[in-house]
Amino acid sequence: MRLAIAQINPTIGALEANRKLIEQAVDNAVEASADLVVLPEMALTGYPPMDLLERDGFVRDQVRELETLAKASKRVAIALGAVLPLPAGRPKQLSNAAVLLAGGERLAAQPKTLLPSYDVFDEKRYFTPAEKREVVRLPGHETLLGLSVCEDTWVEVLPYVDNPVEDLARAGAGLVLNLSASPWHLSKASARRGMLARLAAQHGVPIAFVNQVGGNDELVFDGASFVVDPQGRIHAQLPMFEPGFAVVDLPLDAPVDVPDPEPVSQLEGALVLGIRDYFAKQGLPPGAVVGLSGGIDSAVTAHLAVEALGAERVLGIAMPGPFSSEHSLADALSVGRNLGIETRVVDINPLYDAYREIFGSLFGEREDYGLTQQNIQSRIRGAILMAVSNEEGRLVLATGNKSELSLGYCTLYGDTVGGIGVLGDVYKRDVYALARYANRAEERIPANTLAKPPSAELAHDQIDSNDLPAYDILDAVLEQAIEGGVGAAGIELPDGCSRDRADWIVQRLDRNEYKRRQTPLVLRTSPKAFGTGRRLPIVHRYQG
Amino acid sequence: MRLAIAQINPTIGALEANRKLIEQAVDNAVEASADLVVLPEMALTGYPPMDLLERDGFVRDQVRELETLAKASKRVAIALGAVLPLPAGRPKQLSNAAVLLAGGERLAAQPKTLLPSYDVFDEKRYFTPAEKREVVRLPGHETLLGLSVCEDTWVEVLPYVDNPVEDLARAGAGLVLNLSASPWHLSKASARRGMLARLAAQHGVPIAFVNQVGGNDELVFDGASFVVDPQGRIHAQLPMFEPGFAVVDLPLDAPVDVPDPEPVSQLEGALVLGIRDYFAKQGLPPGAVVGLSGGIDSAVTAHLAVEALGAERVLGIAMPGPFSSEHSLADALSVGRNLGIETRVVDINPLYDAYREIFGSLFGEREDYGLTQQNIQSRIRGAILMAVSNEEGRLVLATGNKSELSLGYCTLYGDTVGGIGVLGDVYKRDVYALARYANRAEERIPANTLAKPPSAELAHDQIDSNDLPAYDILDAVLEQAIEGGVGAAGIELPDGCSRDRADWIVQRLDRNEYKRRQTPLVLRTSPKAFGTGRRLPIVHRYQG
Repeated sequence: MRLAIAQINPTIGALEANRKLIEQAVDNAVEASADLVVLPEMALTGYPPMDLLERDGFVRDQVRELETLAKASKRVAIALGAVLPLPAGRPKQLSNAAVLLAGGERLAAQPKTLLPSYDVFDEKRYFTPAEKREVVRLPGHETLLGLSVCEDTWVEVLPYVDNPVEDLARAGAGLVLNLSASPWHLSKASARRGMLARLAAQHGVPIAFVNQVGGNDELVFDGASFVVDPQGRIHAQLPMFEPGFAVVDLPLDAPVDVPDPEPVSQLEGALVLGIRDYFAKQGLPPGAVVGLSGGIDSAVTAHLAVEALGAERVLGIAMPGPFSSEHSLADALSVGRNLGIETRVVDINPLYDAYREIFGSLFGEREDYGLTQQNIQSRIRGAILMAVSNEEGRLVLATGNKSELSLGYCTLYGDTVGGIGVLGDVYKRDVYALARYANRAEERIPANTLAKPPSAELAHDQIDSNDLPAYDILDAVLEQAIEGGVGAAGIELPDGCSRDRADWIVQRLDRNEYKRRQTPLVLRTSPKAFGTGRRLPIVHRYQG
Repeated sequence: MRLAIAQINPTIGALEANRKLIEQAVDNAVEASADLVVLPEMALTGYPPMDLLERDGFVRDQVRELETLAKASKRVAIALGAVLPLPAGRPKQLSNAAVLLAGGERLAAQPKTLLPSYDVFDEKRYFTPAEKREVVRLPGHETLLGLSVCEDTWVEVLPYVDNPVEDLARAGAGLVLNLSASPWHLSKASARRGMLARLAAQHGVPIAFVNQVGGNDELVFDGASFVVDPQGRIHAQLPMFEPGFAVVDLPLDAPVDVPDPEPVSQLEGALVLGIRDYFAKQGLPPGAVVGLSGGIDSAVTAHLAVEALGAERVLGIAMPGPFSSEHSLADALSVGRNLGIETRVVDINPLYDAYREIFGSLFGEREDYGLTQQNIQSRIRGAILMAVSNEEGRLVLATGNKSELSLGYCTLYGDTVGGIGVLGDVYKRDVYALARYANRAEERIPANTLAKPPSAELAHDQIDSNDLPAYDILDAVLEQAIEGGVGAAGIELPDGCSRDRADWIVQRLDRNEYKRRQTPLVLRTSPKAFGTGRRLPIVHRYQG
């Protein structure tokens, strides 16, 4: 049997366009004389469609596209993920199924058994799980196929009662298809490959893992599809962060050994894809605008935007103010020059003075309005970026990193404005890693931007390390609290960090939930990003 | 048997304080010579604790409070909701249980069977359901008790396979306790009572429904607890929107007939409680600030804030600008006078002029910068409100209504700034109803504010009805699309609304998801509010 795997990049809800993407994969499979082409989970709707699944007509319209697509299966058998309505009588009247189309008809449908309901996943909100798992014979072939969907293979991770691959192997499957929409985070691709290799070896059955690729809101899907043989060897590994197609013949006899790109390269790839698809899938032609402070966060954000959209679609705005240092504007202009983007300069001092007049009338004349005058500088800059957005149709990219967002060391409606928070799931230490990586061939991020101590420059001689713990300490504590789910009492203290300091960090993390609830969506790069995967009350009193 | 029901207002995660609230109910029950006191679902954690449940230590700390509380059950038996750890080996290692404490010990624990996973509920994210339902005998009493938790009685709503009350009645329960945290929306209290009356009559068993009261982030719990007898008659009905306590003797022989407050009164009560608890549970002493435009939304918001916090804790800021009408400032000052709140006036013209200077340098000199200059007025006002917040520690209340938020007829980082969107789940027609209700005894909302056509006053002679369909048409279409989940094609056209106009409304609703993702939390008053109960992709192409 010749098997084709096709990792496509669907747009959520673009049912007809997604069907055409699948038909292109069918064309490729026919040309390659494949017997079967395998596509990702929910290939017609894109993943995750969220509450569109509950909208009257959405599933019906998708089933209509599925019926149209079935005709193409006269040319080659097609396995794809689709949402199927169930007979009434269960609380959730949909299944998330792997569907096999062949000879122009729907030959089989295997609903997903394990419905992930944790982190970013809400599948029990929508679906009823499969009660049984059955193999199916593709006409004209001896091999029995076992169909599975994404989480069905993730039995290592949670103590699920069912083990779909075990059931399918026992029923005689000679090949298990795993149709997936498995979002990326750092280290996920290799972990996934290791897990599926163990599963294939354990049950003595090859597994074809076909994953969605592309950015959908906060989630970036890496693709990185492959076929693994019963010895756990990898075949036909598709690239990360781009669509891909390959064919393999069964039995599998030509394993490959393709190392994943290094972590920082994956991180850049994911963020670039996340930005690109956020623009492309909404059809936002005029591109992006980034406020350039001369600091590292905005420089790296602008670099990533250029990689995603091209330099001609990115505009930088430098907005020096009363506490900006000499080097800030120079560094901001260097970023613009290095990246080849248009950069404009706006002096915010007149606006700052006008606001201070108003502060005088509202709060009494004073030399220094403290936090109020710090924040107003940031909000003036936010308003100018939004004016550019209004006037030119550009999307503002927010530049804050995960370390800052964690503590609320940012100004709501100021430096947090924008459509995407590009670095909102990247700790400060990893922003530096991205900057150094960006400079691998030539200077993109100016040397001075990399070298100088980080500062918001909203007050005289302000630097981050006066307001915050050093980033290596901060990030080490935050990672335990956020990714690790560890309470304040359980934090292992990094060198140089007192218990009080760690408590302060965890408390400040909790107390700034209200800010994060109003910040732009954050491209997810870690196992636990701010966003739909982390759901905390704003008002709560738990101190642990 | 003498039964006490106690609807308490816990704070999420305030484990010790919540335990003390329960101990007060125990004191009351002892004083009333009750045999058993019944409390709401998850009474120690407060509902919903969300991902705090996954935080290392949270459940352990709650179990410690439960053990402390058990001592109080030497005085009177206690039924309360608590989170209990399960033995390892299931994907979700917690249960959401009804716990019976008696004689100083934990006598029984019945996990919840039906775990709601729809709308605002995510219980399958955290809990494993009960596999069986067992009755328990309270020492010294003949009556067998059946324990159930909230959704366990909601079998009318979804086609659940299990019916816990039926199981408990078959097992001989003479009384079913239903420990709940059932959030309010308009018409919910009477619907709930009707449903439980039918259930009690169907299974011939009295049911004690004990509900949480209070505001927790976007959700307002109404309480409105009661006991229903096997004939479906109501006993011991507790009030809405405040804590309550009552005792009844079984068998039940004194039904009551307490009508619910009229809908607009419930709406006001819910919003006032939502505001009050948002402040109180965070300990925000300095109170609120509201931008007063002279229009109806801000006037009603300020009125509700005064009802919630007292006039002395509410500050109004009127911010006339270049397109404000004569009457706007006068109306804003009238609101302030009627409500007895401090009101300050800030002229935004100097700031507006300063921004226009910058627009000239960025975009070229022009007379009119269109949407850009409209939005900047709103953003100047937002920045001033936030400056007051920074300087005085006040929380900004956002004033936008559901009709505006639906269409994105609002300025992100402008009129949307704040900690709570008080009217964000109230259609414009119901804002008028609230205003008229506020004026029932004396003028609170000025007559001119009620009479004049709504306008954002961001351009010459702008009125809402030039930019938008009439609100009666708009609200009728939105209600079908949002509450009804109807797609564009299925909208029943209200009088005077073309198909194109309805399509435009639904498309604009979808396209403005990005704005709503960055607006403050919205107090929920309808079955489908913007917030955690409505999860849609920002980027999608579904047009149905």
